[in-house]
Amino acid sequence: MNNTYVTMIRGEVPQHTPVWFMRQAGRSQAEYRRIKAKYSLFEITRQPELCAYITKLPVDEYNVDAAILYKDIMTPLVPIGVDVDIKAGVGPVIANPIRSMEDVARLRALDVEGELPYMIETIRLLTEEMLQVPLIGFGGAPFTLASYMIEGGPSKNYNKTRQMLVCRPDIWDALMEKLTQMTIAYLGAQIKAGAAAIQIFDSWVGAVNRAEYEVRIFPWMERIIGTLKQQYPEVPVTMFGVGTGHLLSLWRKLPLDVIGLDWRCTVAEASAMGIAQTLQGNLDPAYLFADWPIIRREIDRILEEGKAHGKHIFNLGHGVVPEADPDVLKRITAYVHEVTAK
Amino acid sequence: MNNTYVTMIRGEVPQHTPVWFMRQAGRSQAEYRRIKAKYSLFEITRQPELCAYITKLPVDEYNVDAAILYKDIMTPLVPIGVDVDIKAGVGPVIANPIRSMEDVARLRALDVEGELPYMIETIRLLTEEMLQVPLIGFGGAPFTLASYMIEGGPSKNYNKTRQMLVCRPDIWDALMEKLTQMTIAYLGAQIKAGAAAIQIFDSWVGAVNRAEYEVRIFPWMERIIGTLKQQYPEVPVTMFGVGTGHLLSLWRKLPLDVIGLDWRCTVAEASAMGIAQTLQGNLDPAYLFADWPIIRREIDRILEEGKAHGKHIFNLGHGVVPEADPDVLKRITAYVHEVTAK
Repeated sequence: MNNTYVTMIRGEVPQHTPVWFMRQAGRSQAEYRRIKAKYSLFEITRQPELCAYITKLPVDEYNVDAAILYKDIMTPLVPIGVDVDIKAGVGPVIANPIRSMEDVARLRALDVEGELPYMIETIRLLTEEMLQVPLIGFGGAPFTLASYMIEGGPSKNYNKTRQMLVCRPDIWDALMEKLTQMTIAYLGAQIKAGAAAIQIFDSWVGAVNRAEYEVRIFPWMERIIGTLKQQYPEVPVTMFGVGTGHLLSLWRKLPLDVIGLDWRCTVAEASAMGIAQTLQGNLDPAYLFADWPIIRREIDRILEEGKAHGKHIFNLGHGVVPEADPDVLKRITAYVHEVTAK
Repeated sequence: MNNTYVTMIRGEVPQHTPVWFMRQAGRSQAEYRRIKAKYSLFEITRQPELCAYITKLPVDEYNVDAAILYKDIMTPLVPIGVDVDIKAGVGPVIANPIRSMEDVARLRALDVEGELPYMIETIRLLTEEMLQVPLIGFGGAPFTLASYMIEGGPSKNYNKTRQMLVCRPDIWDALMEKLTQMTIAYLGAQIKAGAAAIQIFDSWVGAVNRAEYEVRIFPWMERIIGTLKQQYPEVPVTMFGVGTGHLLSLWRKLPLDVIGLDWRCTVAEASAMGIAQTLQGNLDPAYLFADWPIIRREIDRILEEGKAHGKHIFNLGHGVVPEADPDVLKRITAYVHEVTAK
C-alpha cells in the first residue's frame, strides 16, 4: 500500500511528495475515451465494476499516489429532485432551476445507501480489492451546487446566484441548509464505504467577495467540515476552488486538512498568508503543452515552495484538459517522485 | 460642463463623487433595446449620429458624470484582419483564430482615421456639441483581445491563450507587439478626436498568474500607458479587469491614473496595498436587484472606503446587466451625488 498522500497530510515524512491530478480519470486517456464513446457519464457511474475500472485507470497509467472516485458533482442532486442532464460540450443543464422558497422546499433529503447504492458498491470494490493507493471521495460544495441549480447550467459570472445570495438571503439560507445536510450525508457515506479522504470542490465560489463569503457561506462550510472531522477525525478533508485567492484568509480558519490552490496563487503566497494546512497544487495545466525543460523548471519552483511550506501534495492548478498528452502526465509523476525521494 | 470625473482624478475637490456605470449604454435601457432591435452593434457604430445618441442616452437617463463611447472592444480588430462576428447570446466569434507565427504576421497595422472614420466622427459630435460631461474613450488590452483571437471566441478558462503564453512565448510576444502598436494608435486617435479620458479593459487578464503577467504582459502595458501619458499627459488612463486582485500589486506600478476594481476586491483592500492611484468601483451588480436599504448600506460602505482612500470614482464592480432597472441606476447616481455633495 502506497500511503504517501495520507502520510504527508499527517505531517510525517513520506517516501516522496505525493502526486495526483484533478480530473485524472478523463478524456486525456485513450481507454477512457473508448469507454465514453459507448456510455454516458451517468451510465458509467451506475455500473460499479466499470466505474471502479475507470477510477483506477490513471493510477495504473500515470502512477499517481491517490485515486479519486469517478463521478460528476451533480450525482447527489438527481436523487434530491433536481432534473439534471449532462450535455456534451455544455455541461450540466437543469430543467427546474431554483427561483423561490417553494422550489427549495421541494428538495428531498438524500438517502445515499438507498438511492446511490452503485456509488457505495464502487467505493467498496476499489478500496477492498483493487487499489494500492488511497481513494479520495468528493462532492461539490453548496455554493457550487447552488450555482448550477440557480443558473440552470454552467455560467461565467454567476449573476443569478450572486443576486439570490445578496437579495434573497432567506431563500439562500434555506437552500444552503438543504445542501449542507445533503453534503454531510453524501460525503459521510463515501467515508463509511471506504474512502480514505475527501475533497470538496467549491469550484466557482471565487465569484463571491470575502464579506459575502464570510456571512453566507463560511458557516455552512464550517458545519460540513466540522461534522465530518468530528465523525471521522482520521480522514483528511481538502477544499479546492478556482480563483479563490481572496478567500484563503477565511479558508485557513476552516477545520480543513488540505487547501488546494489554483494556478494563480503560488504555494509561497499561500504559505505567507499563514496557512498551516497542507497545500495542494498547482502546476498551470497550460504547462502540459510546453517543452519538458520549461515544465521541469516550473515543477522545481513549485516543489521548492512546497518544501519551504512543509506539507505539500503535488497536483495541477486545475483539471487535466482533454488534449493533455498522457506521457507528459506520466513523466511529471515520475519526476516529482524522483526528485523528492527520501 | 460637469467635470467632476477629471477633477477627482487630479486630486482636486469635485462638487460630488463622480459616478458612471460600466456598460451604462446598453440593454438596461428601453430606448437602447428599441434601436438594437433594428440595427446590429456594428451597424450602430458606423452611424455617428446614432452611435453618439446611444452614448449620450445614459447621461440623460441616469445623470452620470461621464459618458463612455458606445462600441465593442472588437472594433479595431476587423480593420487589422480579424474576421469577427458578434453572435447574439454568445459574443464575438472569430473565424480565423491565431495559431501560428504566420497568423500573427498577417495582421495589418491600424490606420484609425482611414478605417474607423465613423468612430472619429462620433467622438467629435459628442465632445464638440452634445456632451456636458467628459467622454471616456476605450479599448481592450492586448491580453484580452488576444484571448478572443486565440480561443476563437469567449472562453471560461482561456486555456489556449495561456498555453500560447507559456509554451510559445515567441508567437505570444509577436502578437503582443502588433496589438500594442495597434492599441497605442487606436487610443491615441480617440484622444486626438476629443476623448477626455481612456479606459483600458483587460477584462480577462485575471486568468493569468502574477509571475506570467510580470514577464509576458506588464512590459506591453507599460509601453501602451507610458506612450499615451507622454503624448497626452493631461488625459487620465484607467484600467479594469475581472478577478485581477492578484495583479494589483503590479498594476500600481503602471503609469495609470485610475485602477478599476471588480466586486471582489474592496476599495479598502486595494487602498491597503499602497495603491496611490484613484480607485474606481465597485458595487456588485447583484445588488441592483436588492431592496433599497440593502443597496444603500452597500453604497455607504463603498463611499466610506473611497473617502478614506481619497480619490474615488463610484461605479459598479462589473457591467450593468440587461435585467437592471433603470430607476435603480438613477437612484444610485442621485444618492451618491447627494451624500457626497460639497
